[in-house]
Amino acid sequence: MKKVHNFYAGPSILPDFTYEETIKAIQDFAGTGISLMSISHRSKQFDAVMLEAESMFKKLLNIPEEYSVIFVGGGASMQFAMIPYNLLNKKGFYLDTGTWSSKAAKEAKLFGDVEVVSSKDKNYSYIPKGYKIPTDADYFHITSNNTIYGTEIRTDIDSPINLVADMSSDIMSRPVDVSKYAMIYGGAQKNLGPAGVTFIIIKKEILGKVDRVIPSMLNYSTHIDNGSMYNTPPVINVFATLQTLKWIEAQGGVKEMERRNIEKAKILYDAIDESKIFVGTAAKEDRSLMNICFVMKDEYKELEAEFLAFATEKGMIGIKGHRSVGGFRASTYNALSKESVIALVETMKEFEKNH
Amino acid sequence: MKKVHNFYAGPSILPDFTYEETIKAIQDFAGTGISLMSISHRSKQFDAVMLEAESMFKKLLNIPEEYSVIFVGGGASMQFAMIPYNLLNKKGFYLDTGTWSSKAAKEAKLFGDVEVVSSKDKNYSYIPKGYKIPTDADYFHITSNNTIYGTEIRTDIDSPINLVADMSSDIMSRPVDVSKYAMIYGGAQKNLGPAGVTFIIIKKEILGKVDRVIPSMLNYSTHIDNGSMYNTPPVINVFATLQTLKWIEAQGGVKEMERRNIEKAKILYDAIDESKIFVGTAAKEDRSLMNICFVMKDEYKELEAEFLAFATEKGMIGIKGHRSVGGFRASTYNALSKESVIALVETMKEFEKNH
Repeated sequence: MKKVHNFYAGPSILPDFTYEETIKAIQDFAGTGISLMSISHRSKQFDAVMLEAESMFKKLLNIPEEYSVIFVGGGASMQFAMIPYNLLNKKGFYLDTGTWSSKAAKEAKLFGDVEVVSSKDKNYSYIPKGYKIPTDADYFHITSNNTIYGTEIRTDIDSPINLVADMSSDIMSRPVDVSKYAMIYGGAQKNLGPAGVTFIIIKKEILGKVDRVIPSMLNYSTHIDNGSMYNTPPVINVFATLQTLKWIEAQGGVKEMERRNIEKAKILYDAIDESKIFVGTAAKEDRSLMNICFVMKDEYKELEAEFLAFATEKGMIGIKGHRSVGGFRASTYNALSKESVIALVETMKEFEKNH
Repeated sequence: MKKVHNFYAGPSILPDFTYEETIKAIQDFAGTGISLMSISHRSKQFDAVMLEAESMFKKLLNIPEEYSVIFVGGGASMQFAMIPYNLLNKKGFYLDTGTWSSKAAKEAKLFGDVEVVSSKDKNYSYIPKGYKIPTDADYFHITSNNTIYGTEIRTDIDSPINLVADMSSDIMSRPVDVSKYAMIYGGAQKNLGPAGVTFIIIKKEILGKVDRVIPSMLNYSTHIDNGSMYNTPPVINVFATLQTLKWIEAQGGVKEMERRNIEKAKILYDAIDESKIFVGTAAKEDRSLMNICFVMKDEYKELEAEFLAFATEKGMIGIKGHRSVGGFRASTYNALSKESVIALVETMKEFEKNH
């Protein structure tokens, strides 16, 4: 098998442990003689998986007692509708920092008033600052990491109203003070597991405050009351997610993930900043530790296709930037090794030397 | 590994081919050097999987041109809300033949009037007949196979209004005249793949006829227009489903599945009917080929726990009946071998001889 470095933005690289344990379970799950794909979700063996995934989540992020952790299908995009469905009475306040927060705000507008502070004026290259959080809004929605634009909110905001964060692409990448949030959610397919399961950390007391009728599957209470088993959960996806959580714990937890992520990002950002041909696209103070976006400087712009081909030849996969930004994007999630980052930096330096 | 016979009602047994191909792809997907769990859904390799899953579905069920096939997350239960969201203007007509159709009707009531014909009077042991389909309803919803109660509608109904069928537990078990339906949907976790993906076959012309505003993820048009890629699809679940579709084709298609299913069901139903201690629970003319429900006759009732222990010892897994029916249920989906059915029958006969 060819050695490749997986920089995909998501679905993205996971620990070898996750692949290996999932394969073993597809062969024979928990000694049942039955495949993980074919085990009843009501079996005691899978019930234990669901409970452990929930408790590992709570343990790793030090989640206070008054929060529930649930797993649902449908992707984070479904949450863009479920959040206003469950929480919006009069108004939602949205920090628009990229494609996903913009989509989240768009769905909320179907349910009521939405106030938005945006960084769209500079193609989402920074995180807005100095804005005032309206205290008459029902909640404040942020996207903590902007996968496409490579910006990240790495401090936990003090909000006078319920703070709701989409952490799809930076969950478990650093310690989080969960008590500052009313809800944290995200798709699993970056730092946790294969696409197909969404985690939700939610403070139970924020629910039941809207008048509208909510269909059962769109009501957070349904999933909380049924321990994520109201309907058949995505069994294999939850199982794989649990393996990644176990791996994170074995590595030293989210504090150690943060140390590694800072180290990896520094190696790549330093290389970008020292380069004569590459330049970063995000405001330095808002740079993401998860998705590192860079382009060629104007005078080298015509070399982009050549670099992409060169890097691909060297085994760098998934470094083409999103069309909204162009250039390149290296996603450096928890499971990406420092060696992969160094390999990319060496590739960039070699290319630069040749030009 | 202990030899077991997997009679789970769902998630349930899948072909070995599905397990094997999925394992290979988790190790190295399509020669990319990357795991199936970590491949971008926008990669050309996964794009090919999604397109093939769609075209295999169309081919196996001979689906007419004017229908779309889409795959979404969230489970069939989410469809219970999405159907009225997208289709109910004034009234929905529901055939209530068990737990799932009952839940579907309950969600529809949040959106408008619902007329119901039910077989609840006899604990859903039969399929209602001779009812009149109201022509002023927007659609007629049926559950073609009732997993819990072991009844099945095995003929395609002629309906004067849009016919919508939940075929979660009998899709691909027999040829279906799709042209008689406006929509067919279901969770993958019985005859198709691991839990976490829902298939929807839908006639495009039935959409866009309601006035209400529909959130993007709940709107069928969103998923049709984006080829099931509006958001990140459940990659591994779709891949595994495709493997099962390929297996069905290689075995001879849905016609051959039906032949095998009739043969397997006959073996078990005959054994039940000839038994002095077991008795079937469903009306004979409505018996399901997928879920075969039986109990002990009244005079042997106290032996149920003993039989369950005896059968479990013999490697029969998942035969405990649902609490709504009691007794036993053997699910005999496409991938279950005739040998497993014979093993169960022998176990029943051996037990009977001992008592």
